[in-house]
Formats: sequence, structure tokens, C-alpha cells
Amino acid sequence: MKKVFATFLALSAAVISLSAHAQFAKPEDAIKYRKASLSVLATHFSRLGAMAQGKVPFDAKAASDNAETAAFVGKLPWAAFGEGTDVGDTKAKSEIWSQPAKFKEAAEKMQQEMTKLAAAAKTGKEDTFKAAFGSAAGTCKSCHDEFRGR
Amino acid sequence: MKKVFATFLALSAAVISLSAHAQFAKPEDAIKYRKASLSVLATHFSRLGAMAQGKVPFDAKAASDNAETAAFVGKLPWAAFGEGTDVGDTKAKSEIWSQPAKFKEAAEKMQQEMTKLAAAAKTGKEDTFKAAFGSAAGTCKSCHDEFRGR
Repeated sequence: MKKVFATFLALSAAVISLSAHAQFAKPEDAIKYRKASLSVLATHFSRLGAMAQGKVPFDAKAASDNAETAAFVGKLPWAAFGEGTDVGDTKAKSEIWSQPAKFKEAAEKMQQEMTKLAAAAKTGKEDTFKAAFGSAAGTCKSCHDEFRGR
Repeated sequence: MKKVFATFLALSAAVISLSAHAQFAKPEDAIKYRKASLSVLATHFSRLGAMAQGKVPFDAKAASDNAETAAFVGKLPWAAFGEGTDVGDTKAKSEIWSQPAKFKEAAEKMQQEMTKLAAAAKTGKEDTFKAAFGSAAGTCKSCHDEFRGR
């Protein structure tokens, strides 16, 4: 049963990556897109980090706005990791394509934490925001450690 | 009275660009951010263009998803055109800073048209979508013609 489920997951991932690939005319377009969207995400997330780490004063409105943007933009890069986009101007590790279910799980976990972070920021409570930021940051780090080279 | 209003607009623009600039540690960070967000926008907008121009069949769900993303991402680049970000790896023309009210108006017009396009796409009606796409595309072109160099 486990094997059947694993096969189903692998097939699903293949279908997803196939349709995702079809959205980009060339592999380099997909690479450019995912780098651009991750770069926009990093800008907003680092502003949240500065507040979470006390480098700049907590500002409820700024936290909420930046977290909302991070949650939205955090949904974008994943469709651009289709087959054939593993070479070129990218730090993506081959594990993304050899362990697609694991990569998908990491990407989904991150999106869930970003959504929680946006909700936490919306409360306007600094402690709630800081806790949620820590969880979200952990998903960035673990995915980068496993799937991004240097 | 007109002069007072113009002065008010200029001061508002200065305050906006000042606070926007403060969001980026270095001018090159702002330039990278606005290019990245405009590149993401271009990816989604070009998919809408392919449907509007009949190069790919109209797909109501894809049109709605891409237009929603274009409307959201279309709000992002403008905070990154602060003072001091006119030089470096950018095609931005000096008119952006010498005619800030005109640039701001163009940016706002684009955002309004993107919002209308997202609403039009949500109707699922191809003709409504195509008309709204044309209006939105017009705002991209006119702003690029006036404010983007080659």
C-alpha cells in the first residue's frame, strides 16, 4: 500500500511538473522566474526578520503588510521547478528532482507557515508575530540546507 | 491654488519616496527588487497576453489566477523607485524623478487597470477579459514609452 501511495505521489509530482514546465517557453525563463519571485520574497521576509530580531522597532502595520506579501509571493516559485530546469544559472540541487515528494512537502510547509505568519502579524501582537516568524524562518532554512547549493 | 496643490503633490511624492527608500539598505537592493517584481509581473501578464491574442486557448481558471497574481505583484515595484535609485543596473529614465507626479499617476493607473483585469478574468467571459487586457496592456506600454529607456 505504501508503495502504491509512493507511486501515486511520484506520478502526481510528474504531472504537476509537466504542466508547470508548459507555462515557461524555455528552462531559463523558469529559472529567471523562480529566482525573481524568491528574491521578492526574501526582501519582504528580511524586513520581518529585522523586526522579529529587534533590529528595527516592531510596527504592526508594516509587519502585516510584509507578511501578507510574503505569503502571496511564497506561493509562486514552485511551479518553476519543472523537469529540465535543473541546469543553467541556478543553485538548485539535483535532489529537487530526485526527491520530488520531499521537495514538494518542504515547499508546502513553507507556504503554510507563511500563511500562519501573515495571520499572526495581523493580530498586532509582537510576541505572536515573533513566534510565527521563527517557525517560518525554520522552513526557509531547512529547505535551503537540503535543496539549495552554494 | 493650482500651485499650492502642485507643491503639495511634490512634497507628498518626496515623503513617499523617502520612506520607500528607507525600506532598502542600498540603492542596488531597490533596483534589484523592482526588476525582480516587474519580471514576475511580466511572466503572468504575458500568459494573459497569449490568451487575449488567441495564441493559446482561453482558460478561465488560468486567466483568473494569472490576473490575480498580476494585480497583486503590480503593486510592489513602485516603492523601490526612491531617490538615489536612478543610477546603476537600470533602464529607468531620469523623468521618473524629474516628473514624480506623472510617474506616480502612471503607476496608479496601471494598478487600477490590473485590478479591473482581475475582476474581468473572474467573470469567465472571454470578451470581457480581452477588453480589460487591452486597457491594462496600454498602461504598461505608455509607462514604458515615457519612463523606461533601452
